Amino acid sequence: MRIVALAGGIGGARFLRGLQQAAPEADITVIGNIGDDISLFGLRVCPDLDTVMYTLGGGINEEQGWGRADETFTIREELAAYEVGPSWFTLGDRDFATHIVRTQMLDAGYPLSAVTEALCERWKPGVRLLPMSDDRVETHVVIEEEQGRRAVHFQEWWVRLHAQVPARSIVAVGAEDAKPAPGVLEALDAADFVILPPSNPVVSVGTILSVPGIRPAVAAKTVVGVSPIIGGAPVRGMADACLTAIGVETSAGAVAAHYGADLLDGWLVDTADAALEGDLDGIAVRARPLLMTDVDAAADIARAAVDLARELA
Amino acid sequence: MRIVALAGGIGGARFLRGLQQAAPEADITVIGNIGDDISLFGLRVCPDLDTVMYTLGGGINEEQGWGRADETFTIREELAAYEVGPSWFTLGDRDFATHIVRTQMLDAGYPLSAVTEALCERWKPGVRLLPMSDDRVETHVVIEEEQGRRAVHFQEWWVRLHAQVPARSIVAVGAEDAKPAPGVLEALDAADFVILPPSNPVVSVGTILSVPGIRPAVAAKTVVGVSPIIGGAPVRGMADACLTAIGVETSAGAVAAHYGADLLDGWLVDTADAALEGDLDGIAVRARPLLMTDVDAAADIARAAVDLARELA
Repeated sequence: MRIVALAGGIGGARFLRGLQQAAPEADITVIGNIGDDISLFGLRVCPDLDTVMYTLGGGINEEQGWGRADETFTIREELAAYEVGPSWFTLGDRDFATHIVRTQMLDAGYPLSAVTEALCERWKPGVRLLPMSDDRVETHVVIEEEQGRRAVHFQEWWVRLHAQVPARSIVAVGAEDAKPAPGVLEALDAADFVILPPSNPVVSVGTILSVPGIRPAVAAKTVVGVSPIIGGAPVRGMADACLTAIGVETSAGAVAAHYGADLLDGWLVDTADAALEGDLDGIAVRARPLLMTDVDAAADIARAAVDLARELA
Repeated sequence: MRIVALAGGIGGARFLRGLQQAAPEADITVIGNIGDDISLFGLRVCPDLDTVMYTLGGGINEEQGWGRADETFTIREELAAYEVGPSWFTLGDRDFATHIVRTQMLDAGYPLSAVTEALCERWKPGVRLLPMSDDRVETHVVIEEEQGRRAVHFQEWWVRLHAQVPARSIVAVGAEDAKPAPGVLEALDAADFVILPPSNPVVSVGTILSVPGIRPAVAAKTVVGVSPIIGGAPVRGMADACLTAIGVETSAGAVAAHYGADLLDGWLVDTADAALEGDLDGIAVRARPLLMTDVDAAADIARAAVDLARELA
């Protein structure tokens, strides 16, 4: 069984760990979002790819869902002593090492896909992890401040401003001219079905789909999504702020409609949204508990997604 | 009193700390060696400049003489887990932060002199620390191995090979075309005298003097040197291997002759070399204990150097 999943960070990574437990024999390719990548202290940081890699590789800080377990913060302390910022983005020493290795390889000319593969040789995540593109795509958010409108890097809006300043628009800068990374279209073509984990539909899954060629390749397959919205609110994160920015209501039904029946074949919603069950303009909707309280719970959800996909395929 | 000192790493830094104690009112400019700078993990490392900065700024690991006090090695551990080398050059987490800040500034276009000044804003070493040049000069060592001759970076010979493989020659690559960093010639011009601490005469002081314009500007001043060789052996380090490579005997007298009477006016040797006292082909030689066992001992030696320089000026 060949499965392709499009993943953002924490929610995607936790779902994927469940998927591995639910389908241990499956050949899983993960297409990871790079829109939230950022250069900090001269180093290239890929938060979503790393969250997937660390989570599936056993190196994640389980409590916070991102960053490394047993992390230390000596470098952060030193950078503060040098008064070198930004201080709002936390990088631990172990995490820094990943960015040092990545940046050194990128500077040597390796594309991000090759770098990610090299990093995964250590972590052995048990999936093939591909960045959506080897080209640079950066999500920028247009916010309105007293001084006027300005575009900030997604991380500045998300981490520094906690998405509290309303976003006027969200743009995946560079996406138009980006090409899918080597292996992305091939994996989609070979897939039995595609799963959209409960990642952010705008700045994670949406950004991946914005790379020319990816959306049609996904739409050509049986696609089952897991709603990141339960009872009108995001399970975690601030997806509501992103949905509002693009004019989509924060509800499981609205997100399904936003993805569209041309893309989605099946849609898992929480029992809180059981009223949506049935056929939603051509999308088969099933309700079940969607809280990933632990790996077993994530595996149960993943199993339901796989079952629905096989049923619809 | 305006003093300029040309310094390498550990020996130079310890001497300078003594000089500050011996001449607390002096305006001291240090011209630092950059020949042993190396790029590791994509970061620019300047061992000699950092040793001076950390030592005078109170951040040095006192026992080993280089690197940071209270150092941790998380990144080193992580790089090993990624199987990314070289592993023979030890960089601690605190030290890494310095190289991250430096590399980020260099990549942004700042010259090394400006970067060093910025780093010193934190460390406040109490001296003006100038790299000998903003141009890249790298000391390479030609060694003979079974496979034939090859040139290696100085650090590879010094740290990885412990200078155990005989050096056929030592070359300061890039020195010919390098220019003194801004402030170097001005500081020399304004100096009352110049001191050569007991740094390596070949790969530290020698490299600094190899930058066109620096040697004549030094020679135009009263210059007093402190012998790094006591009784036919280097006080620390492997200066003998460097001297042998350039055909100079490992003795206090031979090093003075190598610097030459056109450069040196005074030369402090250890009491073990008291036989040299007097006039050595135009260089005034004085013998006194030269072991820098602690800061007070270093201050005594520095005071003797200052006294001799004032006498000869």
